[in-house]
Amino acid sequence: MVPILSIVGRSNSGKTTLLEKLIPELTRRGRRIGTIKHHFHGPVEVDVPGKDSWRHRRAGARTVALSSPETFFVVADVGAERSLEAIAHQALFEVDLILTEGFKAGPMPKIEVIRAAQDLPPLCGPDDHLVAVVTDGDLTLPVPRFGLEEVGPLADFIEREFPKGGDPSRVDVLVGGRRVVLDDQAQEILARVVRSLVGDCRDLCGGPPIEVRIRGQMP
Amino acid sequence: MVPILSIVGRSNSGKTTLLEKLIPELTRRGRRIGTIKHHFHGPVEVDVPGKDSWRHRRAGARTVALSSPETFFVVADVGAERSLEAIAHQALFEVDLILTEGFKAGPMPKIEVIRAAQDLPPLCGPDDHLVAVVTDGDLTLPVPRFGLEEVGPLADFIEREFPKGGDPSRVDVLVGGRRVVLDDQAQEILARVVRSLVGDCRDLCGGPPIEVRIRGQMP
Repeated sequence: MVPILSIVGRSNSGKTTLLEKLIPELTRRGRRIGTIKHHFHGPVEVDVPGKDSWRHRRAGARTVALSSPETFFVVADVGAERSLEAIAHQALFEVDLILTEGFKAGPMPKIEVIRAAQDLPPLCGPDDHLVAVVTDGDLTLPVPRFGLEEVGPLADFIEREFPKGGDPSRVDVLVGGRRVVLDDQAQEILARVVRSLVGDCRDLCGGPPIEVRIRGQMP
Repeated sequence: MVPILSIVGRSNSGKTTLLEKLIPELTRRGRRIGTIKHHFHGPVEVDVPGKDSWRHRRAGARTVALSSPETFFVVADVGAERSLEAIAHQALFEVDLILTEGFKAGPMPKIEVIRAAQDLPPLCGPDDHLVAVVTDGDLTLPVPRFGLEEVGPLADFIEREFPKGGDPSRVDVLVGGRRVVLDDQAQEILARVVRSLVGDCRDLCGGPPIEVRIRGQMP
């Protein structure tokens, strides 16, 4: 699965502004970046009024996608918020690193943005998988600290902590939206069984990606 | 996989307007409807300028998602247009029927909208899997014909042709974005192998959905 790093912090601490600097810096270094923004509740405006896809949704379609040769877009009603793992599992995230804005409650490593003028204690406690802070203040914390403008050194840190191609897993499994980690042997068995059942004789190193979905109700 | 029905027709023939009537009619009858709109080329405006997710994308993120308890939204750069099968395979399409606007070149069954005032021959030929036409004209074609306002009879037809729960497949497999159809026995073997490898002892009839992604490069 693609590694995930969460940028967290209090409202107006500057999370989006930091991401606006970090995304082009990491992209310049050859990383393909995906992002996931957490929206707490309330209506989400995500489409342009009057467009055909907007009209489909207003007519009551639960899931509306727009597909072109360059861009793919989908908006869906969901009954409950999806886990970060379920989001990252999607084929649309063909990236090297996912940065999230928010998701403090999630299990992923975190960088907290702390603005001195807000004069508030850090959001993340010792159990929140904090790996660094970005701040204009003079905090002493047991993790590396970067200034608000120190985008280069922060990108260096992220590149070290999340090396490109550093995730050896090539078989990802989600059960009910939660990731199940398989050891190398189980991964290989699963890949071989799937390829043999679909009649794909290409060796394991070169075949196209395979996606399998097994729904709960069997006939 | 969720059944797919394409609404096709020439520009300004009234495809979106028909969908705006058909989606609520089918929804009222208890169907969960998804839609996929085909956009030929050029820039696609899909987000609201100034929003955080829009700022992420402008900063260079290839894939940007927004997740809330009610709504999920994702926009991604793609290198080539995805197949309808790959789009419908996504977990976001938890629907009973997908209606597409456009995709005349696709392999799915089609309903063509024909506007008499345009005075043009039908878009679909004998090899295009045409199942019905919707028109204000006086055409004679070897498929059922419905008037532009005959939404009820058209919905009856769609319900007959695409019965709810009519697709017996519960194990869906995509290889390189194309669907591979497995027979019942292969589906059951695959479901059993996956459940045994992930240690899910629940029987085949009751477990949560499982998603597996096997990428080409094995270690």
